[in-house]
Parts: sequence; structure tokens; C-alpha cells
Amino acid sequence: MTKSEREKMAAGEWYTCVDPELDALRAAARRAVNQHNIMAPDERGRMAPPLEALFVAVAADAFVEAPFHCAYGMNITLGAGVYLNAGCTILDCASVVIGDGSMLGPGVHIYCAEHHKDVALRRAGLEIARPVTIGRDVWIGGGAIILAGVMIGDGAVVGAGAVVTKDVAPGATVVGNPARVR
Amino acid sequence: MTKSEREKMAAGEWYTCVDPELDALRAAARRAVNQHNIMAPDERGRMAPPLEALFVAVAADAFVEAPFHCAYGMNITLGAGVYLNAGCTILDCASVVIGDGSMLGPGVHIYCAEHHKDVALRRAGLEIARPVTIGRDVWIGGGAIILAGVMIGDGAVVGAGAVVTKDVAPGATVVGNPARVR
Amino acid sequence: MTKSEREKMAAGEWYTCVDPELDALRAAARRAVNQHNIMAPDERGRMAPPLEALFVAVAADAFVEAPFHCAYGMNITLGAGVYLNAGCTILDCASVVIGDGSMLGPGVHIYCAEHHKDVALRRAGLEIARPVTIGRDVWIGGGAIILAGVMIGDGAVVGAGAVVTKDVAPGATVVGNPARVR
Repeated sequence: MTKSEREKMAAGEWYTCVDPELDALRAAARRAVNQHNIMAPDERGRMAPPLEALFVAVAADAFVEAPFHCAYGMNITLGAGVYLNAGCTILDCASVVIGDGSMLGPGVHIYCAEHHKDVALRRAGLEIARPVTIGRDVWIGGGAIILAGVMIGDGAVVGAGAVVTKDVAPGATVVGNPARVR
Repeated sequence: MTKSEREKMAAGEWYTCVDPELDALRAAARRAVNQHNIMAPDERGRMAPPLEALFVAVAADAFVEAPFHCAYGMNITLGAGVYLNAGCTILDCASVVIGDGSMLGPGVHIYCAEHHKDVALRRAGLEIARPVTIGRDVWIGGGAIILAGVMIGDGAVVGAGAVVTKDVAPGATVVGNPARVR
Repeated sequence: MTKSEREKMAAGEWYTCVDPELDALRAAARRAVNQHNIMAPDERGRMAPPLEALFVAVAADAFVEAPFHCAYGMNITLGAGVYLNAGCTILDCASVVIGDGSMLGPGVHIYCAEHHKDVALRRAGLEIARPVTIGRDVWIGGGAIILAGVMIGDGAVVGAGAVVTKDVAPGATVVGNPARVR
């Protein structure tokens, strides 16, 4: 019995995003994201119910400023007191867990998927997804980019505009492109 | 007599953003920003009146493309002929003055506030804000990030995608992450 | 007979963007971009007809996620299977051709124009525009910035957050700010 593309994605194997089931999941996320982004400003802070419904779990006091963008929603967990400033983007082709008390500045991007390096396979839509785990009380400066498979330890600080390609130790501060310990 | 959190913010002292008065000011800004961003395209160029009303001062011919985002609005001054391209974001927890004739490319971010480095204090919402001053006739390339306390001198050029952590001398050109004189 | 500013822009000569004809073209693009960005999510994938009408050519299966931003639209060509993720921005003051099968991550920015380095001329709106050409089957990671005049060869990979200031050879991988071959 062969795995579906969705099952391969979840298993961390190569899959193709050119797939009716994944297309439908992304379309559902697009609708939910749109609901969140057109929500009246006085409703902000509360997530749009269709978006929250997609997520694995969202703490009652997590706050996601609009605009926000995600690929599927179904792989995202937001802990207590998590704050995402305007313009954050999460390509959650794998699990994205953001721990209690962590704060993302404006325009932080998290990418769980990578396209294939081989041109012919990339053209066929082949991707692989690895989880991103952000610990508790992490501060990610605005405009930072977190790449697939990265773990950021509790209490770490990621400088504004940093491009994080490797794990960050608890309590460490990283800056630059690529990000290095300061 | 103790200072309010807003007074501490204005004084450049540590304050907590978890505060009803600051919450209300950010909510007002969120509504004004939304008014600006949903404005009919033919009205662009004129700022949405509720947003302009928040700013310290806006020259008649300043132009702010949508979408735009700011934290409070109440600390921003835009000089004559200032142009902000689409997607600019200003976290104006302190004064942000953009001088006559200065142009910001798309997606330029200006951050006046820093969270506390100490995890327990950061969790309590402690921040400190320092002004950003951009002189006259400055060109800030798209995607650049300007950090708290930075002064950029008249006529300077900031390269696209630069992360500006220190003052920039008048007429200088800086590029890179972190930005350095070229 | 003197050239119009639009003709100078198209010829790769210095022109001023402070010009009624160019203003009108940018206003038309702003309206078309807005139509695209407020389109119901189930319509995404199809480009908003007023936006597609501006482009030089758009393959039937090209996909442009909202939000999207461009300066004119009239200089953009999207090949077969091209995918632009959310938040891409193209300042198409000159030709921007994106070849078949190329994929842009979220928030990729392409800038064809540069302001003048001389302060007085910059203040007068002087700009110069050079084309950006992206070959076939190129993968541009999220948050990357592509500057005026750059050619990216077939099958190349641009890392997330890279700032591309020079041509990229076919099949090469570049990363960093400024981008260098890895």
C-alpha cells in the first residue's frame, strides 16, 4: 500500500506538493488566513475561528497580528502568551511548535519545506519537510528567517533580519546572514 | 508619584507593554492602520485621516503606500516629499522622524523597541525604546531593517536588505547584515 | 523631439518618476494589485483579470499568491508553472521575465530601479531601470531580494534571505548578504 503525498509529507519523506489532497488543504488554509486578515481590528488578538480550528493547539492568550500567512495551519502549535507581530509567515509543511512566552517580531518567516535540488525533481514538485521547534521565552527579531529543521532553545534571542540555518542553543544570541552566535 | 508605563516609554526607561493604557493606544493604531490599508487605491497617497491624525506631523505631500503597519503612530513624523513604498513597518515606541525628501523602499522595517535580555523580565513584557532619526534625502533600499536608536545622516544610502545597527554618517552608503560602510 | 519619461525608462536612461504619465500607470497598477489582493481566496491561482491584463504575458498555470505588489505590471512576464508565494513584490520599472517552472518563496522582492546617487538629482525623482531575468526552474528562497540588472541562470538556487547583487550562473547556489556562491 503506497503512502499518500500527505502521509509522505508527515513522515519527513520526499513528496510532491502537486497533489489534490494537499491542494485542498492549502486552499482551506488560504480561506482561513483570509478570514483572519480581514477580521475587524477590534477582534484582533482573538484568532479568526476558522484559522484557530486548523491549528494543532493555540493557547487562549496567544496573539497573532494581521496580516498572517501560513501554508496549511494544521501543523502549528502556539503556547501560552505567544505573540506574533504583523506579517509573520509560517510554511508549516511539518510541525511548528512555538513555546510559551515566545515573541516573534514583524515579518518573521518560518519555512519547514525545501524544494529538491535536482531540477527535474523540483519541477515535479518534490519537497521535503522538517519540523521547526522554538522553545519557551524566545525572542525572534523582526524580519528573521528560520529554516527547515531548526530548533531554537529556551530563552534564546535571534537578531532582527537573521537567517537561521542551524540550531540555536538555549540562552544564546544569534545574528547575521547566516546567523552566528554573537 | 510613579510614572505610568506610557511615561516610562516616552522617557526612554524600561516599561512593560502589558498595560491597559498602552494596549488601548495600540488598538487605536491597529484600527487606523486598517483604515489606511483598506482605503480605495485611488485614495492612496492621501493618508487615511485616522492614521494621519495619530502621527505627530505629516507633510501634505508625504506618500505612504498600503499596506503599512505601525505600533502606535503617535511618535511618527514624516517630512516633505517623504515616500514609503508598500509594506513598510514602523514600531514607533519612541520618536521616528523621517526627514524631507527621504524615500523608503518596499518592506523597510524600523524598530524603536527592544525586549529585555533577561528572560524573566522579558516574559513580564519589559521593553525599552529609543528614537530613530532619518535625515533629509536619505534613500533606504527595500527590505532594510533599522534598529532602535539609529541616526541616519542627510543624503545617506542604505542598501536593500541591510540591517542597520549603528548610526550612518551623512552621505555614507551602508550595505549588508550587519550594515557596514561600502 | 524629446523622449517622454516613460520612453526614457524603457530605454534604460535616467528618467524622473515625478511625471503624470508614470503616475497614471502606477495608479492603474495599484488598482489592479488591489483587485488581486482582495479577490476571494477560492479565486486565487487565477490572477485578477485587471492585473493579468497589465502583464506582458502570464502562462495559464502561473500562480500568484496574495498579497502581491508591483509598481507597473506592464513589464512582467511569467512563464509556465511559475509560482509566487505570498508577499512577493516586483518593482518592474524595466522588464522582469520569470522563466518556466521557477518558484519564488514568500516575500521575495525584485527591484529593477535605482534612485540616483546624487542627492539633488535623487530629490528630483531621477531613477534608472535595468531588467531582471530569471531563467527556467529557478528556486528563489523566501525573503530574498534581487537587484536591478541581475540575470539568474536556469536551474539556479537562491537561498532564503539572500541579497542578489550580481548575476547567478545556471545551476549555481547563492546565499547570504550580499549573495555569494556556496
